[in-house]
Amino acid sequence: MRLGGHENFEELVAIGAAIRARRRAQEISQEHLALLAGIDRSHMGKIERGERNVSVMNLIRICTALQTRASELLATADC
Amino acid sequence: MRLGGHENFEELVAIGAAIRARRRAQEISQEHLALLAGIDRSHMGKIERGERNVSVMNLIRICTALQTRASELLATADC
Repeated sequence: MRLGGHENFEELVAIGAAIRARRRAQEISQEHLALLAGIDRSHMGKIERGERNVSVMNLIRICTALQTRASELLATADC
Repeated sequence: MRLGGHENFEELVAIGAAIRARRRAQEISQEHLALLAGIDRSHMGKIERGERNVSVMNLIRICTALQTRASELLATADC
């Protein structure tokens, strides 16, 4: 876990990668996940690439759509 | 874990309560936690009361200041 400066963005990249990995494991398209989570598709793409400081509620919605818990997903992202 | 409508705010209240509980257990003032986490004090108060959809990076900063991991804190908040 890192704090301050550029490192912060590493967490977002790791979280996005964990979302993407779980989505692909379930063979769900990014578009379908965005629909399930009630999130704009392009925003979902940015979240997966770690380009957005996703809100906790959107993270929970995405995790619910992926049938996991935000705590579990963050653990896989080492956060 | 709940999705949609009012329920979403229950998660934020639970997360805020988990932050507050851990802060108090460490006998840290809200002001000091805000300083440690680099977050505005009044914003911290709103986060603890579940009134703000806290960003993942702010959650990570708060958890780092509380010497825990975001994944662990979310687990205590049943998210």
